[in-house]
Amino acid sequence: MLAITILGNNSAIPAFNRHPTAQVVQNAEQSFLIDCGEGTQMRMIQYKIRSSKINHIFISHLHGDHYFGLIGLLTSMGLLGRKHELHLYAPEILKTIIDLQLNVAGAHLPYELHFHPLKNEGVILEDKKINVECFTVQHRIECWGFLFREKKNLRKIEIEETKKYNIPSSFFGRLHMGEDFITENNTIIKNELLTSAVAPPKTFAYCTDTVYDEELIEKIKNVDLLYHEATYLHALQQKAASRFHCTSIEAATMAKKAGVKKLLLGHFSSMYESLDDFKTEACSVFENTELALEGICYTV
Amino acid sequence: MLAITILGNNSAIPAFNRHPTAQVVQNAEQSFLIDCGEGTQMRMIQYKIRSSKINHIFISHLHGDHYFGLIGLLTSMGLLGRKHELHLYAPEILKTIIDLQLNVAGAHLPYELHFHPLKNEGVILEDKKINVECFTVQHRIECWGFLFREKKNLRKIEIEETKKYNIPSSFFGRLHMGEDFITENNTIIKNELLTSAVAPPKTFAYCTDTVYDEELIEKIKNVDLLYHEATYLHALQQKAASRFHCTSIEAATMAKKAGVKKLLLGHFSSMYESLDDFKTEACSVFENTELALEGICYTV
Repeated sequence: MLAITILGNNSAIPAFNRHPTAQVVQNAEQSFLIDCGEGTQMRMIQYKIRSSKINHIFISHLHGDHYFGLIGLLTSMGLLGRKHELHLYAPEILKTIIDLQLNVAGAHLPYELHFHPLKNEGVILEDKKINVECFTVQHRIECWGFLFREKKNLRKIEIEETKKYNIPSSFFGRLHMGEDFITENNTIIKNELLTSAVAPPKTFAYCTDTVYDEELIEKIKNVDLLYHEATYLHALQQKAASRFHCTSIEAATMAKKAGVKKLLLGHFSSMYESLDDFKTEACSVFENTELALEGICYTV
Repeated sequence: MLAITILGNNSAIPAFNRHPTAQVVQNAEQSFLIDCGEGTQMRMIQYKIRSSKINHIFISHLHGDHYFGLIGLLTSMGLLGRKHELHLYAPEILKTIIDLQLNVAGAHLPYELHFHPLKNEGVILEDKKINVECFTVQHRIECWGFLFREKKNLRKIEIEETKKYNIPSSFFGRLHMGEDFITENNTIIKNELLTSAVAPPKTFAYCTDTVYDEELIEKIKNVDLLYHEATYLHALQQKAASRFHCTSIEAATMAKKAGVKKLLLGHFSSMYESLDDFKTEACSVFENTELALEGICYTV
């Protein structure tokens, strides 16, 4: 299971108590931060997201509403006594900015910050439970999307059943993988009798900021949850395109063509106080759409 | 009259709904922003401070809790359509940071940003109503204090009285300055009959971050209002000194020795949830002390 908590759902300017972009993806083991607009550390306090659980931060691009809160978060992590390493995935020049800001302050982070410049599409992080891939999206400057792909979960062993059939614990690894057990007298004990299925692995794709671009379809095909920017309502489609952004209808069209299961709309322009029309417009194309609202946790 | 609105009163880490340093000084004509910690633009929205009225921003030093909100404010001002020029007074290297962040975003401010590097103590801004001076304070890195000094206000002309004595309007400029009027037959009409006094000019000094340093006394002598950092309670005096900060008692001692009229304490460490003891300690040395509380406007 993946849980996505929205910390900021607005585009460039904060307005109507909406904040610049940031969200946290959590699995059972850790938290991942995607983008870090100004004030993200305050939103994390507000929504009780522990920064110590975040070991990987992904920055889509270097427009300020996606990263101006990063340097504050990094230094606060240090002041809070963080010792364990942190991994940052971002356009390469961000390292220069961070180093410059630390240098002028005479500051030193008390933990290791591993900087991973985004250069090629593909897997950028792999651990036991999850893979994260990056892919390019089309915006006014270099910009990346991210795809979180849970690994296939092992089947859960039912200990009482294994005792009943006298299965040796040395076989448990193969049981996890779904193998049947064959006794000395060639009786087959079906795996289904000894284990139970667990939740299938989930996928989550993050796309902001981007113009409507059908090359994206293959990159996010069939994901369980797609977060896609919808900066404007469709009446402003030309403005959206000229600024390399999308409308609600375009985000929904992308979700439909990519065959995703659910769509989460965000990155709303500060020209809109009410967001209701974003949902109405998007649902007319792709029904399973929700608005990304700050403080709300969406699970998949 | 000067009005000082506190936007952030905490030191390094945001905590207990207190935010990093920022405050606005207002006179009848315009607003001046001093320091700009992360989230300052959100606090300005919250407290209805119009960014369009701010024409001068002063940054004391380049520890993040005093300027990480600046780049967001500058770019938001542009996105909100600002056209009139803005003046920024700060340590020189800040210009490199701002230019770098604008460049990587492919961004261009639609207004002129005049950068004034702080180099020597003395007047850095002078207009019809006010002077602003900068002076050095002792911190771990280059750090500046600021002194706002209202100009002497012109006496107010009482129009009905000038009609009664038949004073020509061509003499009004000299009346403003306090001159008596001498009639053709050498009768002296005393200025006091024709004008009234207005409020005397006020002074406000801003000192953060600084170690306790008696060299400061002469620089802030007799000001009407002193904002002085008090990061720690006095039990942590050694820690304060080692980090080039002050305690409540030290700030109050400074206020007393400099003969200021009123003291405003701020820049509280996030280790303190309650601030009551700061006031109690400071008042034991200098009675006319207040805590700088966010959202509160202090007039002088």
